[in-house]
Amino acid sequence: MMHEKIARNASSQALMTRVQDLIGNDLREVERVFLDEIASRHPYVREVLSHLTSYRGKRLRPMLVLLSASACGGIDPAHVVLAAVVEMIHTATLVHDDVLDEATTRRHVATVNSRWSNETSVLLGDYLFTHAFHLTSSLGDAAACRLIGRATNIVCGGEMAQVADRGNLSLSEEQYLEIIEAKTAELCAVSCLLGAQHAGAPRSTCDALDGFGRSLGIAFQIADDLLDVIGNERNTGKSLGTDLQKQKLTLPIIHLLTQVSPADSETIRELLAHPDRQTREALLPWLDSRGSLNYARTRAEELTVTARGHLACLPDSPARQLLEDMADFVTIRTA
Amino acid sequence: MMHEKIARNASSQALMTRVQDLIGNDLREVERVFLDEIASRHPYVREVLSHLTSYRGKRLRPMLVLLSASACGGIDPAHVVLAAVVEMIHTATLVHDDVLDEATTRRHVATVNSRWSNETSVLLGDYLFTHAFHLTSSLGDAAACRLIGRATNIVCGGEMAQVADRGNLSLSEEQYLEIIEAKTAELCAVSCLLGAQHAGAPRSTCDALDGFGRSLGIAFQIADDLLDVIGNERNTGKSLGTDLQKQKLTLPIIHLLTQVSPADSETIRELLAHPDRQTREALLPWLDSRGSLNYARTRAEELTVTARGHLACLPDSPARQLLEDMADFVTIRTA
Repeated sequence: MMHEKIARNASSQALMTRVQDLIGNDLREVERVFLDEIASRHPYVREVLSHLTSYRGKRLRPMLVLLSASACGGIDPAHVVLAAVVEMIHTATLVHDDVLDEATTRRHVATVNSRWSNETSVLLGDYLFTHAFHLTSSLGDAAACRLIGRATNIVCGGEMAQVADRGNLSLSEEQYLEIIEAKTAELCAVSCLLGAQHAGAPRSTCDALDGFGRSLGIAFQIADDLLDVIGNERNTGKSLGTDLQKQKLTLPIIHLLTQVSPADSETIRELLAHPDRQTREALLPWLDSRGSLNYARTRAEELTVTARGHLACLPDSPARQLLEDMADFVTIRTA
Repeated sequence: MMHEKIARNASSQALMTRVQDLIGNDLREVERVFLDEIASRHPYVREVLSHLTSYRGKRLRPMLVLLSASACGGIDPAHVVLAAVVEMIHTATLVHDDVLDEATTRRHVATVNSRWSNETSVLLGDYLFTHAFHLTSSLGDAAACRLIGRATNIVCGGEMAQVADRGNLSLSEEQYLEIIEAKTAELCAVSCLLGAQHAGAPRSTCDALDGFGRSLGIAFQIADDLLDVIGNERNTGKSLGTDLQKQKLTLPIIHLLTQVSPADSETIRELLAHPDRQTREALLPWLDSRGSLNYARTRAEELTVTARGHLACLPDSPARQLLEDMADFVTIRTA
């Protein structure tokens, strides 16, 4: 197992090296546009924003914009701006999510809510949202504003639906998938769509890229939710078990509840209804023995196959190859 | 005093009747556009949104858009959309403000954070922000997106500056005015500007309307902050004394600290540094005897004079007359 893990880490590092080789300059330009847009002369705002830098992650969404653009014809300056926009929206939702989840660490550092306060997090998230829209408008392209506006509407609707379904121990797989499609996959889909559209791709190719981002996004969220159950805090660098604490049912639990006897289901629901720090450990043997962890993993892997299928319409290119490999990469952390 | 109060209420009712006579149909259309944009099929989202209806107020900002448009040439459908947009942004900031202020009532009803939770409020505010941007983009006018984006950037920057300055007992009048110009006046200014601009007004008139909205907005916030000190909860329908509780210095307090002996200043700072439910009553005699309440009132009134001055470039019209009267109206509550 350890060898496999080392091999996986090496292969994801190799993937990131290939990404850097192809679009490293563009990604650095995205970073510059991102920081320029949110710059503030106010010392307090600057301090909070500089903490954000240690907070952010893989830049998955900017990569999706840029690789989609590259695979569909080429990267232009508008793509760099759009990549910064989707990253800013994603960061805004992370900052607000950490308030909702009462999370204390993310990427091995203190969250804004734990280091400052919930108030600062609420306002910082707002600040990032409004700057993302302002940055979009700088392109002078109302259609891009509309796509970004529509996608963020769906993201926020999904987040609200998720809060509404907390404590709903009868959440179905279909309902779960609908929520994660809205709250996570929509932004991945629009990232790919904008990349393709601004590269002048025909409608059918834009739709295919949207479909790629959507399937990849759902797979990513299933994997992320799985990690919240099986991961360890040292490796992932963030608070874990928060879904259980907040009574958010995710795919392994939803599956488990369909696999057990009525009596066992009652026991499990009792655990879920009164979560504490031991709930995760108490559930793991059930999740393992009833195949629920494997079920979630398999669903995520199937979605990455679907995602790659959408790329069939594209000519072969290093960017297309990287998009395909990224689809695998999003689930690799949980294998 | 009571007669004066009845007279004031009657005159503000008369003003609202004149507003309704002139732009009542447009305001109802704004309401329809507002509700259409935020409509959701999700029962929980619908429930929270329907509570919002009892939560909202005077529609000051939509009136500013529409009256500015009318005074500058005429109201068209784009103005109705823009009026809904500024009201939606304002509502988003109210919902998040209530989280920051831990307010329990607004307009005589429970706030979203007190009836549901902070989480719901955070997400509802986000939902309103993103829908406001989406609605703006529906006009197909990237310049309008940019103006709205820029104004909301400034609003959020102002809110962050205010949180940073909590507990700063040395806040100057200049710093205070800078904060309220950003967090309140900017949105009033852009409301008037958009009204004028989309009515085809020349640049100088657009600037004048921006100036009108800015002075009116600052006057309004000074008056609102004064009400937090001198109002009573039954009349205003909202939690009061929250600025003191949250150690936000406002104009009467800032003035008071410049008017007292070093020893008295020490006593007052001690009260401000450890606020409780009695702080407001303890400070009122000081604020009254040192002329600090009158000082704030006079500053607000001076700003309404400045605001009206900006309208001199407009031809006489019922809309211009109403804008002038509204400038008086925003401070009348505290007289």
